[in-house]
Amino acid sequence: MTKIDLVADLGESFGAWSMGEDEAVLELLTSANVACGFHAGDPRTMDQTVARCVARGVSVGAHPSFPDLVGFGRRQMDLTADEVRTDVIYQMGALAAFAKAHGTSLTHLAPHGRLGNLVATRPDYAAAVVDAVLAVDPSLVILAQDGCLADEANRRGVRVGIVGIADRAYQADGTLVPRSQPGAVIHDVETIAARTVQIVTEGYLYAVDGTRVEVRADTVLLHGDNPEAVENARAVRAALEAAGVTIAPLSEVLAERYAAENRDAERRDPALR
Amino acid sequence: MTKIDLVADLGESFGAWSMGEDEAVLELLTSANVACGFHAGDPRTMDQTVARCVARGVSVGAHPSFPDLVGFGRRQMDLTADEVRTDVIYQMGALAAFAKAHGTSLTHLAPHGRLGNLVATRPDYAAAVVDAVLAVDPSLVILAQDGCLADEANRRGVRVGIVGIADRAYQADGTLVPRSQPGAVIHDVETIAARTVQIVTEGYLYAVDGTRVEVRADTVLLHGDNPEAVENARAVRAALEAAGVTIAPLSEVLAERYAAENRDAERRDPALR
Amino acid sequence: MTKIDLVADLGESFGAWSMGEDEAVLELLTSANVACGFHAGDPRTMDQTVARCVARGVSVGAHPSFPDLVGFGRRQMDLTADEVRTDVIYQMGALAAFAKAHGTSLTHLAPHGRLGNLVATRPDYAAAVVDAVLAVDPSLVILAQDGCLADEANRRGVRVGIVGIADRAYQADGTLVPRSQPGAVIHDVETIAARTVQIVTEGYLYAVDGTRVEVRADTVLLHGDNPEAVENARAVRAALEAAGVTIAPLSEVLAERYAAENRDAERRDPALR
Amino acid sequence: MTKIDLVADLGESFGAWSMGEDEAVLELLTSANVACGFHAGDPRTMDQTVARCVARGVSVGAHPSFPDLVGFGRRQMDLTADEVRTDVIYQMGALAAFAKAHGTSLTHLAPHGRLGNLVATRPDYAAAVVDAVLAVDPSLVILAQDGCLADEANRRGVRVGIVGIADRAYQADGTLVPRSQPGAVIHDVETIAARTVQIVTEGYLYAVDGTRVEVRADTVLLHGDNPEAVENARAVRAALEAAGVTIAPLSEVLAERYAAENRDAERRDPALR
Repeated sequence: MTKIDLVADLGESFGAWSMGEDEAVLELLTSANVACGFHAGDPRTMDQTVARCVARGVSVGAHPSFPDLVGFGRRQMDLTADEVRTDVIYQMGALAAFAKAHGTSLTHLAPHGRLGNLVATRPDYAAAVVDAVLAVDPSLVILAQDGCLADEANRRGVRVGIVGIADRAYQADGTLVPRSQPGAVIHDVETIAARTVQIVTEGYLYAVDGTRVEVRADTVLLHGDNPEAVENARAVRAALEAAGVTIAPLSEVLAERYAAENRDAERRDPALR
Repeated sequence: MTKIDLVADLGESFGAWSMGEDEAVLELLTSANVACGFHAGDPRTMDQTVARCVARGVSVGAHPSFPDLVGFGRRQMDLTADEVRTDVIYQMGALAAFAKAHGTSLTHLAPHGRLGNLVATRPDYAAAVVDAVLAVDPSLVILAQDGCLADEANRRGVRVGIVGIADRAYQADGTLVPRSQPGAVIHDVETIAARTVQIVTEGYLYAVDGTRVEVRADTVLLHGDNPEAVENARAVRAALEAAGVTIAPLSEVLAERYAAENRDAERRDPALR
Repeated sequence: MTKIDLVADLGESFGAWSMGEDEAVLELLTSANVACGFHAGDPRTMDQTVARCVARGVSVGAHPSFPDLVGFGRRQMDLTADEVRTDVIYQMGALAAFAKAHGTSLTHLAPHGRLGNLVATRPDYAAAVVDAVLAVDPSLVILAQDGCLADEANRRGVRVGIVGIADRAYQADGTLVPRSQPGAVIHDVETIAARTVQIVTEGYLYAVDGTRVEVRADTVLLHGDNPEAVENARAVRAALEAAGVTIAPLSEVLAERYAAENRDAERRDPALR
Repeated sequence: MTKIDLVADLGESFGAWSMGEDEAVLELLTSANVACGFHAGDPRTMDQTVARCVARGVSVGAHPSFPDLVGFGRRQMDLTADEVRTDVIYQMGALAAFAKAHGTSLTHLAPHGRLGNLVATRPDYAAAVVDAVLAVDPSLVILAQDGCLADEANRRGVRVGIVGIADRAYQADGTLVPRSQPGAVIHDVETIAARTVQIVTEGYLYAVDGTRVEVRADTVLLHGDNPEAVENARAVRAALEAAGVTIAPLSEVLAERYAAENRDAERRDPALR
């Protein structure tokens, strides 16, 4: 039986400003990436968001960002690796304290916004994030797409949860079609739902040029920005359930994958048994 | 043999701006109150400050503040108790992560600046700070002067380290002479050193009106703002050592005090033995 | 023919966060209080808000705040008068530059949130705001309710526009019923509209205890927080127009009032003619 | 008689943190680049800095930055041109209000730090800065080194003051040797002083490879970071005076240069007379 985790970015309000349909989308999730104050998420928002996650049994992960509140962490900043490492430690720690206060602990970490894009291609930033995780809590899973961060984490023994992006078109090399190109974002909810099921149950998609591309996912990123996004997320979850997929915590999904990988390795090399 | 902890506020630089003679004053301390980003202390400063403390065997404590960088946390803000609680949790967590990264953990918490003044007289802020400590790490010692915060922490089972202030004049009721009054701050280093020794070895001082006032201290607050302050701090430490006082970690000082209090209690009530 | 200005707080979005139905409420206004970055309003929001005001012929005023983004300027801060004065100068100047860039200039200033409350009762803050206005642009009108700020501005020759608050209950002494008390805020739109007309055309209201209270207004504060608030604002404007009141720029309203006051003064003392 | 303006960055303290020997270096200057709050310079610092400049007859210019307090504006940020334009307008306006309050007005604008580097090579940022100046105060002089900003300003009719950098080595193409290379920064004060005199009186320097490079300057950048820097600045000024150079306001220097350029143009093309 196939299992998948469902994750969304949460807690992105700030002070008097509200963002996202957190209550509604929480019902659909097994994991949440919670803003830690650098792009969104003041201490009250963090406290409430963690409380809601705990109440619903949703796993809490850190969603650290560049320090850019007015830019929502979406603008490239040329930080040193040491600045990335210490900014991530600071944010992980702040959120971990709220997790502790609500009787839980962080399960994962997923870099936000522009930092999240750059860790896929900049080895120094990828290393800085892995350094931060190893220094503070090596038990965390790092959420990433294929790229530098996933490679670096794997290499250094940090578990990685690969994030499937069902509402974006892929290129033949397995990377996303850049947002600047037409057709980069898929808006039709039935298409998104069908692609999600295909990624999860079959492990491939067709790229924009028709090439078959392997797309693995341990978790699928949903959106809760507005009521319509929540409707789409609900449809994706329903399609997965209709296809017999079990929505399960990330730790369970990863345990199964690692077990399967071990079995494969043993099959290829009986000496490993 | 009398024991005392020595503490100072550290890590109060920010970005390109430097403040305090941290390296020099660190040699004299057993404990440090480390800024957590709200009044001072960016992630790099926090990382380096904790590293220096660990290298010297100095205990690391959180020094949370009102969120007021431009005012250095010295200005009164009318926050709700929930805002104080969550701001303190955020800052404790951020610093705890740096402690973790350097192989140690926080030992204590000392509210900074105006928040530090207000917790002595505002029961709601005192309760908020104790709530934060109990929620995240009940093993922390809260540093305070006599007042609401010390009372609330004692009442709810959080250990308290009473901070002795040797460079301030006292009033007959045991409170400090307000800074606005002449003679509030003592500048002569020999007087400060002598008063420190008297607090630590004898447990009293004379108030401005000549009344004898009990002044208990588990730790004495030193200053490292500038080279002269460090000289004064050095003189205070030397005077304590010359008087046969042992400079010891706060946990050791508190363990002795609690043991002594138990012996006293048992002496008064043999049924407690 | 009676004239009144209509004003609302605008430009209170920040970065990725949106607040208020600015486009819709702008159609109803003659003046806008525009956030200047300390409680809301980043440079892009300020630029767009001023552009919209200019496009609609709405007068642009500064809406300076305590420096408290996470608290939206609603929390009391104990600043010195010099801090208030310089914070207000900074914010006025920033907004004035956007006004200049769009071919206009500021017409008024209305302190925001908690600062706006405090200037009514704290003479030091009231003087600091008037100092700022006199130093930078003495031609600005200060918007205020009766209180210290209005008195100080009048005393020092700065024009004052008195703000009528139609959705709040009044006490017998002419001050608002505090929000903490039941009945402080009036929600029924017809009542609000009727009270607005009564303030504007008759100059009095009945207080909660039935006393008749003089309530003068040069401008009436509308709200654009959400679509319902805009509906209410529309109803208030319609009621005023139905009652024969002319919606006019504040400068025109004040010119008429000052002319009337001069005529009154001359009637009482013919020597003034 | 040759004239030159002398400029330094001032007002780079923030809140409780002090930076630079402003009082001492002010005695040597004819112009100051004053921080506007985004990388340094809170409203009190801005107010005091402008007051000091006015007291000494030093011209006040805006020194706008990327919004990066913790990074002191030294880190590259990938802002849109519209973000640069509006951030610059905001900062110019804020400082202009303090200038107004002290009875003066801004004379120039010099982008700070990383923004200051990028405007030399990024046409979009250069255009954004010129847009901001033209929108708010076209009478301002833009301080720049040779590059995009100087070109764009010249092209659109904004006066440019070319900044000479005497403590940096030049490459054969007239650009500075990057700081990452050995010998980029010149530390010997006599060499710096001699190079300054050579730039001002002769208009050329020798590049690191011995090539003669034309280096024009309307103003020379001095430093006041610490007492030693001030000593160096003093030596540079003394060397200029000893060489018969007149230290003069930038407007005077530019007026002479423009007059000379006109004379040259007329000589080359008598029809222009």
